[in-house]
Amino acid sequence: MLHHMESMVRRTQDSICTALEALEGGAQFCTDVWVRPEGGGGTSRVLQNGRVFEKAGVGVSVVRGKLSEEAARSMGGGQGLVGEETLRFSAVGISLVLHPHNPMAPTVHANYRYFERGDGTTPGSWWFGGGADLTPSYLFEEDAKHFHQVHANACQKHDLTFYPRFKAWCDTYFYLPHRGETRGIGGIFFDDLRDRAPLALFDFVSACAAAFLPAYLPILERRWQMPYTEEHKRWQQLRRGRYVEFNLVYDRGTVFGLKTTGRIESILMSLPLTSRWEYNPNPPEEGSQEAELLAVLQKPKAWLSP
Amino acid sequence: MLHHMESMVRRTQDSICTALEALEGGAQFCTDVWVRPEGGGGTSRVLQNGRVFEKAGVGVSVVRGKLSEEAARSMGGGQGLVGEETLRFSAVGISLVLHPHNPMAPTVHANYRYFERGDGTTPGSWWFGGGADLTPSYLFEEDAKHFHQVHANACQKHDLTFYPRFKAWCDTYFYLPHRGETRGIGGIFFDDLRDRAPLALFDFVSACAAAFLPAYLPILERRWQMPYTEEHKRWQQLRRGRYVEFNLVYDRGTVFGLKTTGRIESILMSLPLTSRWEYNPNPPEEGSQEAELLAVLQKPKAWLSP
Repeated sequence: MLHHMESMVRRTQDSICTALEALEGGAQFCTDVWVRPEGGGGTSRVLQNGRVFEKAGVGVSVVRGKLSEEAARSMGGGQGLVGEETLRFSAVGISLVLHPHNPMAPTVHANYRYFERGDGTTPGSWWFGGGADLTPSYLFEEDAKHFHQVHANACQKHDLTFYPRFKAWCDTYFYLPHRGETRGIGGIFFDDLRDRAPLALFDFVSACAAAFLPAYLPILERRWQMPYTEEHKRWQQLRRGRYVEFNLVYDRGTVFGLKTTGRIESILMSLPLTSRWEYNPNPPEEGSQEAELLAVLQKPKAWLSP
Repeated sequence: MLHHMESMVRRTQDSICTALEALEGGAQFCTDVWVRPEGGGGTSRVLQNGRVFEKAGVGVSVVRGKLSEEAARSMGGGQGLVGEETLRFSAVGISLVLHPHNPMAPTVHANYRYFERGDGTTPGSWWFGGGADLTPSYLFEEDAKHFHQVHANACQKHDLTFYPRFKAWCDTYFYLPHRGETRGIGGIFFDDLRDRAPLALFDFVSACAAAFLPAYLPILERRWQMPYTEEHKRWQQLRRGRYVEFNLVYDRGTVFGLKTTGRIESILMSLPLTSRWEYNPNPPEEGSQEAELLAVLQKPKAWLSP
């Protein structure tokens, strides 16, 4: 499964970067191949200050090593393992965050990962996790519906309960309690998925990863050249501040990475190039586009309600 | 003591804001008086986009209420209290963060606070905390020495061990493990101070608060109009990103505030107006001013060594 997964995430990284470079029409991803002293490594591909993107990062990691006793205890999948086996782990994943320049074009994040403890043969010692979510500064309902629909389609071929469960999980996970807002307009999120055959779940996760470009690219194509004002840019920068707050305060992967021996540049690749914090800015005027966005962040919406 | 402290921090807030407005020569602090539903409130004074400052916030808070069981357990000063008394608290403090526009002018932070549990009469149920630290983007040794010297003088009138202990504590506290760097070039930091008569410690904390303007203003006056390039500004913005990382990931007050019912705008007043994260930027060239700063952040220096 580690090999299947590695080959899938590397193909996905290639196809996403190729498609984004085509839209950039000039700027290219820089590639960093890094080695983790404790075992394994990864390939980070980053494009900064392009025509479309302020910052776009697409990373693959294939790591293995020993968990700390504390990490091993707090983590699922350890039942049935004994001694050293309890601490051995392998993980393969792809993680991407794209921040466009244009405030009308939403930021997007996706992440798909496979994790196993011991040699992965003990029942329940492995799992899949992942998801994709959209973070607009300005809300276009058709974009939100499209993004959710493409992911719902990928889910529904595998299990009719997946989309409703993972949509709700996404709204819960990407929530900033101190702001009373979700980070964006959601998508899907799942973790600890191991309730059926590994290959069935691998197919599901592969389908989600393959859904990324059809879900996001059409949105980006219709937004990245829209006209915008300085005021739109300011609002985007304030929203980017919220993105930073979520990632540094709540995101499990980021917080875990900062407190262990992760590769710091890969962990913080998700942060926007620029962001802004004003003291107590005036709330958006009632009926404004900014207020419309806040309303759906404060009360997540059923984008695909019949 | 609550009244003594409140009157001291309010006077300090006034004198600092008045001095900074004089330097601004036009822009003024806006004043927000806020009430905490659980008890008490505060006065936040903020100046944004002035001539000197990108963002300057000076806040006073005078709050009281009930600790959660968890907060009460994890906190000192609870010995000897029983029942409801264990949960009652009062706190009075001043907290300021000033971010100048000019990359040659350092960011500065100071905070002085008094805390008591129960009615504050049980021995050991009250304490003082605080400190001041300087975060330059470009290092001027004379600035670092001056800032430390003024605070050392304030300490040494009270206890010869204070400055060396609190200087070291500051270097330890303002450290970002994931970057292997301190946030800035230090200053003083102390907490849980209750090892002598309350009035003696109040005098000490008052002296530190009074040291703020003489410590910082001369530095600001010689830096805020220095010429600088776009490259200097970029470096400042990257350093501001580190400031955000420290405050959101490690700063106890911020993290505690975010996870409880603090007033969010006052808690995040410390964040810079703008900041920047580039993916894996080239390290500064050897011998450059940027490399010189990093060297002292990676290995804190004894600024006042004889």
